[in-house]
Formats: sequence, C-alpha cells, structure tokens
Amino acid sequence: MSRILFSLLLILSFMQAQDHLNSWHDEKSKNNIISYIQSVTDSKSPDFIPEVDRIAVFDNDGTLWSEQPVYFQLYFAMDRVKALAPEHPEWKTTQPFKAVLEGDMDALVKSGKKGLLELVMATHAGMSDEEFDAIVTEWITTAKHPTKNVHFSELVYQPMLELLDYLRANGFKTFIVSGGGIDFMRPWAAKVYGIPTHQIIGSQIDVKYENKKVVRIPKIRFIDDKEGKPVGIHYHIGKHPVAAFGNSDGDFAMMEYTETNKQYKTFQLYVHHTDEKREWAYDRKSHIGKLDKGLDYALDHGWTIVDMKSDWKVIYPFELKK
Amino acid sequence: MSRILFSLLLILSFMQAQDHLNSWHDEKSKNNIISYIQSVTDSKSPDFIPEVDRIAVFDNDGTLWSEQPVYFQLYFAMDRVKALAPEHPEWKTTQPFKAVLEGDMDALVKSGKKGLLELVMATHAGMSDEEFDAIVTEWITTAKHPTKNVHFSELVYQPMLELLDYLRANGFKTFIVSGGGIDFMRPWAAKVYGIPTHQIIGSQIDVKYENKKVVRIPKIRFIDDKEGKPVGIHYHIGKHPVAAFGNSDGDFAMMEYTETNKQYKTFQLYVHHTDEKREWAYDRKSHIGKLDKGLDYALDHGWTIVDMKSDWKVIYPFELKK
Repeated sequence: MSRILFSLLLILSFMQAQDHLNSWHDEKSKNNIISYIQSVTDSKSPDFIPEVDRIAVFDNDGTLWSEQPVYFQLYFAMDRVKALAPEHPEWKTTQPFKAVLEGDMDALVKSGKKGLLELVMATHAGMSDEEFDAIVTEWITTAKHPTKNVHFSELVYQPMLELLDYLRANGFKTFIVSGGGIDFMRPWAAKVYGIPTHQIIGSQIDVKYENKKVVRIPKIRFIDDKEGKPVGIHYHIGKHPVAAFGNSDGDFAMMEYTETNKQYKTFQLYVHHTDEKREWAYDRKSHIGKLDKGLDYALDHGWTIVDMKSDWKVIYPFELKK
Repeated sequence: MSRILFSLLLILSFMQAQDHLNSWHDEKSKNNIISYIQSVTDSKSPDFIPEVDRIAVFDNDGTLWSEQPVYFQLYFAMDRVKALAPEHPEWKTTQPFKAVLEGDMDALVKSGKKGLLELVMATHAGMSDEEFDAIVTEWITTAKHPTKNVHFSELVYQPMLELLDYLRANGFKTFIVSGGGIDFMRPWAAKVYGIPTHQIIGSQIDVKYENKKVVRIPKIRFIDDKEGKPVGIHYHIGKHPVAAFGNSDGDFAMMEYTETNKQYKTFQLYVHHTDEKREWAYDRKSHIGKLDKGLDYALDHGWTIVDMKSDWKVIYPFELKK
C-alpha cells in the first residue's frame, strides 16, 4: 500500500513541479534555481540533501512583498496612531506622534530610530496577543497602499509565491526570517505565503502571561535584522539552512551564514529591485532596503541575482487577472 | 488524480490509527484521548478543528521521558564538568564544581538554583552551536542512567510515543515545550520523538553571530517554565494550542492557557507518576516534578489524569523487546 502511495505522490509532485515558476522568464535566475533544486533532491546525486535538512529562509520586506516608499508596517503604526489619538491628547504636541497626525513625513524621518521605536511601542503593545492579532487582520484587509492603491497584501511578488510553492513541492520547509514584527506578519502571512505561524520569525517585543492571557508589553525583546538573523534562525529553527533569499544588506549575515553550511550544497538569491516602472528601482543608495556590500559579495561569489525587470514576467498576482 | 490520492491517504491514515495506543490499557484515559481526537477531526462534528489549528504541546521531563532521581540534563552537565576539569584546576576548590567532582550530591543540592545555573553556564556555553550539538550527540549515545543502566534516550515513555504518532496521524502538529534546554533536546529529541527541531521549545542561553558562526554565550535568555511556557508558546508557535500534556505544576500555566482557548474544544492530560516499581512514584511532595496545585485543578476540571501503573501496559520501548 505505502509503496503505491509513494509512487503516486512522486508522480503528483512531478506534475506539480511542471506548473511552477510560470512567472519567471527562462533566464539564468530561473535555471539556477531549478538546477540547484534538481541536484539536491535527486537521491543519486552527490549533492543530495535529506528532506529533514531542506531548510529555506526568506526575508520578507523587499523579498516577498514590496517595501517602498517605507516599510508597510510603518503605515500600520501610523494608522494605529491616528486611531488611538483621541485617547492621547498629548500626542498633538509630542514627536513623533505629532508628525504622524500632521502627515509630516520629514519630521517623522527626523525622529530617527528612537522615534520609530516609540511609535511601535505605543501601537504594538498594551493588549493581549489575540487583540493585536484582530487589529492587524482588520488593517490588512482594509488599508491600502498610498500610491499603488491596492491592499498591502496584494503587493506580494507572484514569482516568489511560485518559488515558495516549488520549494515546498520539493520537500523544503520554508521559513520567513524578517526584520519586521513577528506578530505583525503572522495574522496574514500564514495565509498569503502558505507558511505556518511557527515558521515565521521576526523582531519581537516582550510578552507576559497574566490573568490567563498573553499580554504584549512595550519592551523590545529581539531585533531580527543583520547579525540578528542567524541568531533568530538558531533560536527558532535550530538547524543550519541550505538556501537563503533576501534583497538587502540586512539579509547579508543570514545569507553568508547559509553559505558556511559545510554539510550541504547551498543556494543564495538576492532580489534586485531594477524595475522602476512596475515596482521600484533602488539599491546602493536607498534608505529602505539598501543593497551595497551584499551586491558586491553576491557578484563575487556567484550568488543568483534576480533582475526584477528582465527575470519576472509579472510582479504582483493581480497582474495575472488583467 | 488528487481525489484518488486523497482517498488512499484517508484509508492509510485509518489503518495507522488502528495501530495506535497499543501500550495503553482500555481504560478511561485512552478512551478520553480517542473520543477527543474523533470529535475534533470529524468534519461533521460541531467540535471540528481545521488541521492548521491542531496544535498540541508536550512537556518533556516527566511527560515524554523520566526525570528521576534528577533531571537528566543535570547528569549531562556533571559529565561535562568532569570532562572539562583538567582545564579548570580551580574547580577542585570551588562550589558547585567541587561537589560534582567529588560526587557529593548533598553539597550540589545545597548550591541551589545559583549553583545549577553556574553549572549550566560553564558547560553549555563558550562553543559554537555545532560544537555543542556534537557534544550532546556524543553524550546521549554513550552515557547511561545511574540506576536503570540504559541510555537516557531509552527512558522515553512508549505510550507517549504512540500518543505523539496518533496525534500526528490525525493532522496535529506536535510541539515540545520544556523547561529543559532547547539545544540540549534538539540533537536527539527530533529523532526520538519524530518532532522537528523547529517544533522544540525550551529554556535558552544567548547566542551571537561572530566570524560566520553562531556562538553560545553564558547568559540566560529565557526560562521556559511555569508562566514562561505560555510565553514560549507565543514566541515560537504564535497560535493558541488546543491540547496540552504535562506532569507537574511547572506545566500548569501551559495547560491552563490551553484551556482558555475560546475558539475550540480543548484537551488537557497530566501524566501521574504512580508506578514505583516500573518507574517512580511521586507527586505533591517531590522536589523534581512536583504535582500538587495542578492535580487538584485537574481533578476539579475533568482533565485526564494518567495513572501510569494502571493505564500503561509498558513504560519504556525496550520492554516491548523482552
């Protein structure tokens, strides 16, 4: 019985693989991906990786969905400030809240990291985990991007959704390892990317268990960015990944760490934002998603660099419906 | 194709379910488990739980394997002290190391929590994640329990292994949520329990990313015990569990938290250590695995209480081979 079942599963998985990566042009990037996956999943190949060790890690902002003109989580925080403002009359005269309420992005940017942290603390803490989950779910299904004018979760990359599916169809476990908030992603990313909540890793604030509830408290616990990414991988996965996908210098440590896996053949891919018409074009000089040191290293080490403009037939899923 | 496949999978899963819980006597505990699983997996039942929300959490020490006369991780730490002693001549005259080297368990117990923490720091930090993994793997395959005289990983509970399989065959994701060290469990628990490393949660020390390595540093990051368990569940799983399995007051908060799940029917089970012949008998007065407040609450709230002596045909897998 189980042998027949196994054969059927094999056939099914082969049929599914045929359907993958449809939004990728037949260029080098696509070929690199397919040739890596084939070499590590063929049990006769010297590069074969047992299924239990097929761990793939993905950055989120700029790798799985857009991140311009600012990280989408900042729009969420700003919308929360506006919603909570009636309870906080002092915000009218206190930065960075004043800047948000007056729509003064320059002043907001000037408030720097400290200001952004204050925004996050004031809007992401002080409620139970379930209340926060409901707030995010409400926002993600209603708020719209200021220039694209679609819901933020519609701004995920169709070719990357296909890549996630393709990896999973080949026995990979897919994880998100993002600098964004873990609990900001979990309510929607699980559905949108097909990645269960326990495979989503991100920056965290503290919580405590009180009166039978998990309550969010305004204290940073972990920043899952730069050198924090391999650390977050250690805490949450406990295994050395074999494949890493990012778009910025913030992902470099995670990708470099993946490359040091001595046991298995590894794969690294940078999404390079080169399409100012369909998405945005930015790299070495950008404040958001800066890709500079990482780009040089990637070129040097033969990492795959996706040219969004020439590699991807479409950017967003809604383009397929047109 | 996929419909045939689905039918085959259903038949296979049914055949597997028949084979489960063989080491459980047909008593109340077994019936409680089966009736819960049937009610939440039957799509026509009002208690049906979608597969994505079937989250089951298990304590480790005393729930999945034995924990007497002291937590097994302490034997590991003591063996490490002995192995490292030549590099630390000062340990001959410094507690708690002196106590370990002289085999003076009374003095070791007297060193209290502070002493135990010192032992853990001296033995669990100062190397890369991969080096520590190799040390644990070597120990778990060679060291033996002082009175049972078998490898520690042979002291897992056969009926609980069957329960883990039974839950997974019914679409549950199984997680370990242990007060023990996350990196002490991962190298062997993944294989022994069939639970992947990223579904193992435990107490943690800090790590940092340095010279392309994840390096363990002697600083407690998180204690996954008591009120820490719901907190660890939040950080790692990001979903409210529906079923919880423990054996002590240290698991109470996790089980109570599971009980507050408003969305679904829940299940709680305490393993009660009642078999002084085949395992150990202890509860309200024990220093290790104290079960007092939790036992009263369980009796009050109709939680399932496993009587090891009368509920389990065998305790350990090696008894099956006899």
